[in-house]
Amino acid sequence: MPTDTGVPEPIPAAADGVIDRGLLSPVTVGVDALVSDAAIADALILAEIGLVRAWASVGVAPRADAEAVSAALGWRAPNPVGGTPTLPSLALASTEREALLRAMLSGSAAGGNPVIALVAPLRELAPAGCRAWIHRGATSQDILDSALMLVSRRAAAEVAQRLRGVLTRLDRFAEEHRSVAAAARTLTQHAVPTTVGLRTAGWAAGIRRALAGLDAAVAALPAQLGGAGGTLAAPAEIGGADAARALPAALARELGLAAPDAPWHTTRWPVTELGDALTRVLDALGVFAADTATLSRTEIGELAEGDGGGSSAMPQKRNPVGSILIRSAALRAPQLGATLHLAAALAVDERPDGAWHAEWPTLRELLRLTLGASAHAERLASGLRLRPEAVARNLSVTGGLLVAERVALAVTPLIGAERFRDVIAAAGSGADLATLLRAQPELAGLDLEALVDPHHYLGLAPELTDALLTPSPASSPADRANPAGQGRAHDRPSPAEQEQP
Amino acid sequence: MPTDTGVPEPIPAAADGVIDRGLLSPVTVGVDALVSDAAIADALILAEIGLVRAWASVGVAPRADAEAVSAALGWRAPNPVGGTPTLPSLALASTEREALLRAMLSGSAAGGNPVIALVAPLRELAPAGCRAWIHRGATSQDILDSALMLVSRRAAAEVAQRLRGVLTRLDRFAEEHRSVAAAARTLTQHAVPTTVGLRTAGWAAGIRRALAGLDAAVAALPAQLGGAGGTLAAPAEIGGADAARALPAALARELGLAAPDAPWHTTRWPVTELGDALTRVLDALGVFAADTATLSRTEIGELAEGDGGGSSAMPQKRNPVGSILIRSAALRAPQLGATLHLAAALAVDERPDGAWHAEWPTLRELLRLTLGASAHAERLASGLRLRPEAVARNLSVTGGLLVAERVALAVTPLIGAERFRDVIAAAGSGADLATLLRAQPELAGLDLEALVDPHHYLGLAPELTDALLTPSPASSPADRANPAGQGRAHDRPSPAEQEQP
Amino acid sequence: MPTDTGVPEPIPAAADGVIDRGLLSPVTVGVDALVSDAAIADALILAEIGLVRAWASVGVAPRADAEAVSAALGWRAPNPVGGTPTLPSLALASTEREALLRAMLSGSAAGGNPVIALVAPLRELAPAGCRAWIHRGATSQDILDSALMLVSRRAAAEVAQRLRGVLTRLDRFAEEHRSVAAAARTLTQHAVPTTVGLRTAGWAAGIRRALAGLDAAVAALPAQLGGAGGTLAAPAEIGGADAARALPAALARELGLAAPDAPWHTTRWPVTELGDALTRVLDALGVFAADTATLSRTEIGELAEGDGGGSSAMPQKRNPVGSILIRSAALRAPQLGATLHLAAALAVDERPDGAWHAEWPTLRELLRLTLGASAHAERLASGLRLRPEAVARNLSVTGGLLVAERVALAVTPLIGAERFRDVIAAAGSGADLATLLRAQPELAGLDLEALVDPHHYLGLAPELTDALLTPSPASSPADRANPAGQGRAHDRPSPAEQEQP
Amino acid sequence: MPTDTGVPEPIPAAADGVIDRGLLSPVTVGVDALVSDAAIADALILAEIGLVRAWASVGVAPRADAEAVSAALGWRAPNPVGGTPTLPSLALASTEREALLRAMLSGSAAGGNPVIALVAPLRELAPAGCRAWIHRGATSQDILDSALMLVSRRAAAEVAQRLRGVLTRLDRFAEEHRSVAAAARTLTQHAVPTTVGLRTAGWAAGIRRALAGLDAAVAALPAQLGGAGGTLAAPAEIGGADAARALPAALARELGLAAPDAPWHTTRWPVTELGDALTRVLDALGVFAADTATLSRTEIGELAEGDGGGSSAMPQKRNPVGSILIRSAALRAPQLGATLHLAAALAVDERPDGAWHAEWPTLRELLRLTLGASAHAERLASGLRLRPEAVARNLSVTGGLLVAERVALAVTPLIGAERFRDVIAAAGSGADLATLLRAQPELAGLDLEALVDPHHYLGLAPELTDALLTPSPASSPADRANPAGQGRAHDRPSPAEQEQP
Repeated sequence: MPTDTGVPEPIPAAADGVIDRGLLSPVTVGVDALVSDAAIADALILAEIGLVRAWASVGVAPRADAEAVSAALGWRAPNPVGGTPTLPSLALASTEREALLRAMLSGSAAGGNPVIALVAPLRELAPAGCRAWIHRGATSQDILDSALMLVSRRAAAEVAQRLRGVLTRLDRFAEEHRSVAAAARTLTQHAVPTTVGLRTAGWAAGIRRALAGLDAAVAALPAQLGGAGGTLAAPAEIGGADAARALPAALARELGLAAPDAPWHTTRWPVTELGDALTRVLDALGVFAADTATLSRTEIGELAEGDGGGSSAMPQKRNPVGSILIRSAALRAPQLGATLHLAAALAVDERPDGAWHAEWPTLRELLRLTLGASAHAERLASGLRLRPEAVARNLSVTGGLLVAERVALAVTPLIGAERFRDVIAAAGSGADLATLLRAQPELAGLDLEALVDPHHYLGLAPELTDALLTPSPASSPADRANPAGQGRAHDRPSPAEQEQP
Repeated sequence: MPTDTGVPEPIPAAADGVIDRGLLSPVTVGVDALVSDAAIADALILAEIGLVRAWASVGVAPRADAEAVSAALGWRAPNPVGGTPTLPSLALASTEREALLRAMLSGSAAGGNPVIALVAPLRELAPAGCRAWIHRGATSQDILDSALMLVSRRAAAEVAQRLRGVLTRLDRFAEEHRSVAAAARTLTQHAVPTTVGLRTAGWAAGIRRALAGLDAAVAALPAQLGGAGGTLAAPAEIGGADAARALPAALARELGLAAPDAPWHTTRWPVTELGDALTRVLDALGVFAADTATLSRTEIGELAEGDGGGSSAMPQKRNPVGSILIRSAALRAPQLGATLHLAAALAVDERPDGAWHAEWPTLRELLRLTLGASAHAERLASGLRLRPEAVARNLSVTGGLLVAERVALAVTPLIGAERFRDVIAAAGSGADLATLLRAQPELAGLDLEALVDPHHYLGLAPELTDALLTPSPASSPADRANPAGQGRAHDRPSPAEQEQP
Repeated sequence: MPTDTGVPEPIPAAADGVIDRGLLSPVTVGVDALVSDAAIADALILAEIGLVRAWASVGVAPRADAEAVSAALGWRAPNPVGGTPTLPSLALASTEREALLRAMLSGSAAGGNPVIALVAPLRELAPAGCRAWIHRGATSQDILDSALMLVSRRAAAEVAQRLRGVLTRLDRFAEEHRSVAAAARTLTQHAVPTTVGLRTAGWAAGIRRALAGLDAAVAALPAQLGGAGGTLAAPAEIGGADAARALPAALARELGLAAPDAPWHTTRWPVTELGDALTRVLDALGVFAADTATLSRTEIGELAEGDGGGSSAMPQKRNPVGSILIRSAALRAPQLGATLHLAAALAVDERPDGAWHAEWPTLRELLRLTLGASAHAERLASGLRLRPEAVARNLSVTGGLLVAERVALAVTPLIGAERFRDVIAAAGSGADLATLLRAQPELAGLDLEALVDPHHYLGLAPELTDALLTPSPASSPADRANPAGQGRAHDRPSPAEQEQP
Repeated sequence: MPTDTGVPEPIPAAADGVIDRGLLSPVTVGVDALVSDAAIADALILAEIGLVRAWASVGVAPRADAEAVSAALGWRAPNPVGGTPTLPSLALASTEREALLRAMLSGSAAGGNPVIALVAPLRELAPAGCRAWIHRGATSQDILDSALMLVSRRAAAEVAQRLRGVLTRLDRFAEEHRSVAAAARTLTQHAVPTTVGLRTAGWAAGIRRALAGLDAAVAALPAQLGGAGGTLAAPAEIGGADAARALPAALARELGLAAPDAPWHTTRWPVTELGDALTRVLDALGVFAADTATLSRTEIGELAEGDGGGSSAMPQKRNPVGSILIRSAALRAPQLGATLHLAAALAVDERPDGAWHAEWPTLRELLRLTLGASAHAERLASGLRLRPEAVARNLSVTGGLLVAERVALAVTPLIGAERFRDVIAAAGSGADLATLLRAQPELAGLDLEALVDPHHYLGLAPELTDALLTPSPASSPADRANPAGQGRAHDRPSPAEQEQP
């Protein structure tokens, strides 16, 4: 690019610039539009409009100016559903949207973030007399952080809805198979019996816990407004201290976000708490998927996906594609979450020198993976099929050793530990355990058939299933509150209820 | 090790085996004993004793047997302080402890975990008639998970106490310097004025939020008890369904942990929620440390540590060693946290094939770093010294450009944007901003001295400081509850209050 | 998505599906087209055509068929530049490209990867009689892995060229300032003098080492061809063992990649070695950027970027945006590299169940960040400006303590350690070191002016600069070979030379 | 710790301070002594002695002084084996070693690293007249970095030796089972046949490649010597420029390390290249282990470990403990490697403010895991048992569908794609494929028995096995050289040959 004598050309805006449509991301393709660049551009514009409206709401900007700006830029107010507010949306023409997005793309490398290049063209779109209210008193981080929180809230609400769909299906599956005995496996080896229901309920319990954490994190997502150095100095200069004091909460109200206690330019818990919650969602979905993939193995075959994936070479293949794609997301998420923490730990000065910038694409990718994995999990849970004959076959594949723990409890007192060890060793070499036991005269009084029947050694599996499917009273929504009370929310419904259909 | 013809020798137990005393970990040396192998060995023994006591508590084991085991193995019951329970501790002779620890070290590679090799020698130490109650109905994961939760609870309580110490000091420092103007820096460059108090209060706010999250995570840490496959089958076989049902909560009560909703052998939120909370603590401490290190730079010099570190070569050096060591922990934590998530996502079957094992040292190291960083943060906050002359010097180093934003608001309407740009450019080349402004006739009516005085452009910094130091009512301890209500706790004080002195 | 009673709808292809144009990625916007979905789609098509050509090259497919397919699908053979081969490219009409890309996007979720859905429409575009040769004997992983290697090779060659541009500029900067004394800083504090040249040469040395590693990794990138299970069974069935044996190298030759020793479906060093090399490039660029950002701090001011970035709020701001964006990439890269390792470690069976899928977007993002950071580094190095007056000012800011180490060597023998300590302590409190020394009668014989002059205590800095700028003979390109000799390359030029202009 | 009014107490040295003996690290216990704190303390002392000897070697220190220091501190010169040098070792009394280690532990928090506190007590142990040569001209980073390289070299040589042991065994296993047909699995499902030999050879190929990379990285490990700011100013002041110039290579020669091109205080490729190589070793071992664990699953049962691990609850269990422990290491390594990269990218100034410190324990843990995993891999490879009857059973479990790809190639031309799809669908529902084919009249001329026999569809698996077991000529040791020629090595044998027995 540079010539030998000169400075390199400025880095050009891409002619087209489309990098990612999902070609390498089958787990998200088609279900991740809520976090696309277009959606983020909308949120940036909404945050700018929200600020103008907030200035009006605190009595500094004329209400008419705020409405004129809102109308010109396509602000669509939240449409309360049954009295509950929703998030604002944008009804701007696609050519104008595209122009604004291109302006941001062209200018972001020079300014270091896309917002700086948004302000001028956005003002151009506003009625002349109202332009000065756009971006008034704000810094680019105020807009970008608020927009990412808005996108996060919307995407996380969609994720939550999908997770509730997963839970509905898994709960039903668990109930149906509450008492179906199956081999439990520890360290890859058959251990003792469990039930299909308990295993399923365990997946659901993990997802339910992660969902509660997501709801809590989302409810706390705050708007950002601090001005250039986080002191609200420009807002105070412009509108006086009272207005400046009220402005952040007013912005939050417009955007449907929690009001911040103070600017959080370098106090990044809103990002890390959300990132952690999303990662825990993917952890929980990952376990569901990994177990399903394992139990779908050709030799095990206890589970099958509703519709397996095909192959470009092998006509017979029915791959557990849903599980595999969910797993691909779960394997990537922890490292994305780590980047968010790292950025938080390096959030120096009053705006960090690179750490902030590392957050944006990382948080977006984490949201995207969660959107994709939850969509696939919903399909996976819906179509999940149990193959009872495989479950039964596997139960008996060890010739009774699956209940060796139980047998030990029953027979060691009668034949001693040494002889019991011999019995187990013989069974391990292929002999049938029941037959071996019948050969021990001391055990004549025992019902050996029942003793080695795995269905009689399920422990509390069925009732543990019930316990996991019926969340304890303590886990009512009211308890899912923001643990530390920061990011005080105005009364609002849980995220999943608040989106319009 | 192996000869060419034969199988390699079994892997030997280390002669001495001490790997880590902290030589490469100055941030933790001397303050991490709560998570040492010795402490973990104690917790493993306590978990085994706790199980025996739980069997008695549910009416299956004779109470006398449980007391005999407790006495022989050195169980020291929690000693309620003012009615609040504490955690149990171990009063076993050091030779016996060492023997048990060595047994575990020798056997852990063969069994895959240290618990298997603990059971026999522990039984040896118990009165002959009571031995059978040791490890009765449990699997090694029950003991190891419970022990790690016990260690985590104790260590996290210590961390929380240290963090409260940090907050006390930072709050005081922030109050003292609530209105001391200082340069805010964004993207490494002077931006606008802020106050020393607001910057400090920002650190405190991050730490306070992280502490609330830690308290919530710690309160939810559950005991583990599921038996071989997580069905409580052996406990039910041994004591009947009612006893098996009550046993996990009874164990939790003995150990001072939360009662689990169900076995969580492969539902690893207790580990990841704790790991996330610890990482967020280190994020917040990392910001405090990174800012302190930056502000201690020779050219900036606004802050100094109470006692800087020396050098092996340079006699004049006073390095901000506390900050540096805290940062070293903050840089490592995110990747440790990621490993915990990864392990959670790979928690397959009814006990995972390697993922579980990857958790143990990772969680310990994360606890250790948090113990170390919080101890250093407490020292750092205690000794932190402001250098007001450097703060003042830096305020004026840009010749007034620090308030360019304010000046723009005031003078652009009077002289136009173009002339204002020229003024700023001239100031950027070294001219004094006030002088340049005085040369503009249109500005004659303005109090230019006041306009360019950074002390007059602090915005809401002092009152934002107050807001951050006075947590909002919503953040009372009662709200720091376990968000999803799982891991129901018996009534108990906050972790920090519950340790004995 | 799902109704309460039914299975959820199939996951739809996105209407538009553009997720990422770079809005949240200013470090890459405009310079990352080589790794766009469009470029990857091209590479997938090229890999399919390359396979047809390879079949002809081993004498199984008719040469005319291969040429007909090549012509119909837009294969543009490498155009040797001075006898050196280049990579193939694609000259297909954009509507056809878009149709193929859309087919892949629509089908990738169902098949788990995009290739399965490519085969049929690609065959449609080929002349009827030749269609059967498309994808003949291959599995989707063969095509996807080969395509990613092709994209990697092209992108890495561009990165290498940019890095050579960085080095040209940094070398010149280092030579120019070879002997300019400046304060060295350790643990944030002034330590001893160094030179601007040595610091710059250190950045260059890191980048040069990383570039050598990148060249070595790129030279080893192999084509992939193993068929369904990595045994080349279908190729052998189709063309006989001899043809099957020759086919992978033939494919490699067509694509300009190294010939594989064997299929590497689950032996993922080509991905991890590349990932590690890319991460090390970003590490080295990160140091350059972080130092530049630090040295550009308002109070330090020794360096300035050619054109700093502006602010949406503060008219005076000239932020070191290039440095900051490079840093944002360097902070993200290690965790992306970790994901590649994790995927490699989980590459089970003959094709992994999720780990493979986690590689694709991660490798692409790592390539993308490296493309972006190297482009910004080239601009940064081109425009970098030294501010000699700031360098000089900072040299003396400690009143002589910068040479305390030297003074200690000279005067301790004369006045003893204790009195020397007192002198240093007084200097640390603000007194001038030279003045304090002049007050010591024993030092009358020393040239104290020279002793405390930092320009006289540069050690070997200038000649170390030279050493770093003149790579040792051992580092000639011939030594940058593939360390283990795997992935045998046909003779070919270094990656950077081989692209067409 | 702090009182309410005062500064907290200095952080105490631990009474005992033993944190880690391996209780939570069964994968390393007993095989990791080479990286213990004691080994590192030895290396630190050796680095200090090496420096004194280097001063003599360049003609500045009297040779007698260097020998006196060497004798007093227990320097044991490398004992050439057949003309090849080895690494130095330490023969100091254990009480003196312990005292020095304790001094470092006590002082490391105050100084930020352990070296500062080592110098004085080390001088105490040296003859009075020679003390001044200890640590002469060095900074603590010179000693610590050199010591870590020394420890790394020794540990990596041990790892390399173990890996060669693994390869010997896997190669033999692969040869033995070169043509044993087995099911290949892709995306968890049976795909086509492969051979046990090829699968094993794939593991070996991955390990062989990683070993070559490790050898290359180890050969490049340089000594560190730059003095306080990396300029060699103090050495030049003390001994003149010529001596200073020669000193780093002299130190390297004493320690058996490569000579550095220049000080690398902030150019951290020696650490990241080693870290990457170690991580790739663990990736490759991880694949071996994960496949072994999967193939040991109760239902699959094709492989068994020589001696499986037991259970605390289930008498029949034979867990694949070796595989599981290796996997636990492989899951942790990528994130440790990421921390090393992160530290490298943050290596600012002339010594970084925390990033350097984050490297030490991370690199040690990565070495430790590699030591442990390679030891277990050697045992695993030695004892690995094939269960031919399970291999054969699994081959036929799909009723012939394992060769559906081949059948498609043979019969689709005869019966058309549609009828073939029906046949496969019927087979997928449980019918026998051969029977279904025999019912197609068009196929009468085919040898259907042979067609569906998996042993006839092995492709090139046996010969690919051979290719992977016989490294290509290019991979001779001479090519394993340091790719970029930095870190010039004196002639020396490959690391694995150079240790004394």
